[in-house]
Amino acid sequence: MSLYTSDNPVFASFSFYAALLGAKTLLMALLTARQRFRKMVSAFANPEDAKMNKGKIKTDDDVERVRRAHLNDLENILPFLIIAFVYVGTGPSLGCAKFLFRLFTAARFMHTLVYAVFVIPQPARAFAFFGGIIANLYMIYAIVTSYALAF
Amino acid sequence: MSLYTSDNPVFASFSFYAALLGAKTLLMALLTARQRFRKMVSAFANPEDAKMNKGKIKTDDDVERVRRAHLNDLENILPFLIIAFVYVGTGPSLGCAKFLFRLFTAARFMHTLVYAVFVIPQPARAFAFFGGIIANLYMIYAIVTSYALAF
Amino acid sequence: MSLYTSDNPVFASFSFYAALLGAKTLLMALLTARQRFRKMVSAFANPEDAKMNKGKIKTDDDVERVRRAHLNDLENILPFLIIAFVYVGTGPSLGCAKFLFRLFTAARFMHTLVYAVFVIPQPARAFAFFGGIIANLYMIYAIVTSYALAF
Repeated sequence: MSLYTSDNPVFASFSFYAALLGAKTLLMALLTARQRFRKMVSAFANPEDAKMNKGKIKTDDDVERVRRAHLNDLENILPFLIIAFVYVGTGPSLGCAKFLFRLFTAARFMHTLVYAVFVIPQPARAFAFFGGIIANLYMIYAIVTSYALAF
Repeated sequence: MSLYTSDNPVFASFSFYAALLGAKTLLMALLTARQRFRKMVSAFANPEDAKMNKGKIKTDDDVERVRRAHLNDLENILPFLIIAFVYVGTGPSLGCAKFLFRLFTAARFMHTLVYAVFVIPQPARAFAFFGGIIANLYMIYAIVTSYALAF
Repeated sequence: MSLYTSDNPVFASFSFYAALLGAKTLLMALLTARQRFRKMVSAFANPEDAKMNKGKIKTDDDVERVRRAHLNDLENILPFLIIAFVYVGTGPSLGCAKFLFRLFTAARFMHTLVYAVFVIPQPARAFAFFGGIIANLYMIYAIVTSYALAF
């Protein structure tokens, strides 16, 4: 019997949080664009963009900060989406799965807030980062032990 | 009943376009390599590569342009693949799903063409970028409204 | 009948290797952090990190090398995870699927070893890179031929 149906509340929950995190990752591009336009004199990466906006090509610290936050999302959110999907197939309890999906989602929104929106001194960002990592590693452990014979 | 079977034409269509977009993303590495070899004197990132090809280590504008297009694919195509997969589970009509998959695929091929193959002035790239974003945001909206109770 | 169930040994095998590769991708962040702390005087990207560790903000060749290996994982492992998942749906033989999953996993672990842990001259890295690419392209070919009518 397939666990990947909208009747399974764990899959429904995964779908909901996957959409939320997918939206968050895509919107980082708009956050970068906002910074590029705010810093117009110095923050375009391509000659055609700089020309269109009468700006200059130069790297800018605030733009680079948002881009690092975006890359960090690719490094963490995209693996999560696949790991969490595979984890749904191991038949976890709804309570445990929902806790992990919410922990991860909260950690990643927090990460971007303290990294690229309101810059807050360390260890704020480290806590947010490890909150996400712990949720991922727990699910990886659950998958590997469920499927150890499939090596 | 699972919607993730080859009997479901929406899943079959997703599978086809996912393979196409996966291939496109992987081939960006070859496009970067082509630029590195064309610009041999100045475009390797590692000493061992430069040595092997009698080139130098230096960043080069045309190589960096292809690398930015590649990163933009990671930022947009990888979220699409997961969002579209989850969207298949909401049971959309075949016509609507196929339209979105084709719009996104066309937009991303166009994006790379105007960004990194034949450089075309803005707003060509912006149109291609937003074509992809709109397909993604529409699917995210459909998922969130389908699974709103799974919060 | 769904192929995405833990009863299907091909899906079980996919799940196992997906968890392994997910873990590997996440751990690249720790490898980067290790290099940043080893090179403390010159290798932090953010003022708040440098301040906390009494280091300086500067790019460093060894840190950048690990970051390039990490980006290369995002460019190759993340597409693999989705391509391999879709490939499971085409109903491949267990032997063939397991061979491809193992080839890819071995190639990517090798890639990081020769790129960022023990730097080994080319063509070691090129072999590892193309081992992964070949597994991906083979699966893409299998998907496209299976679903050619879903165009």
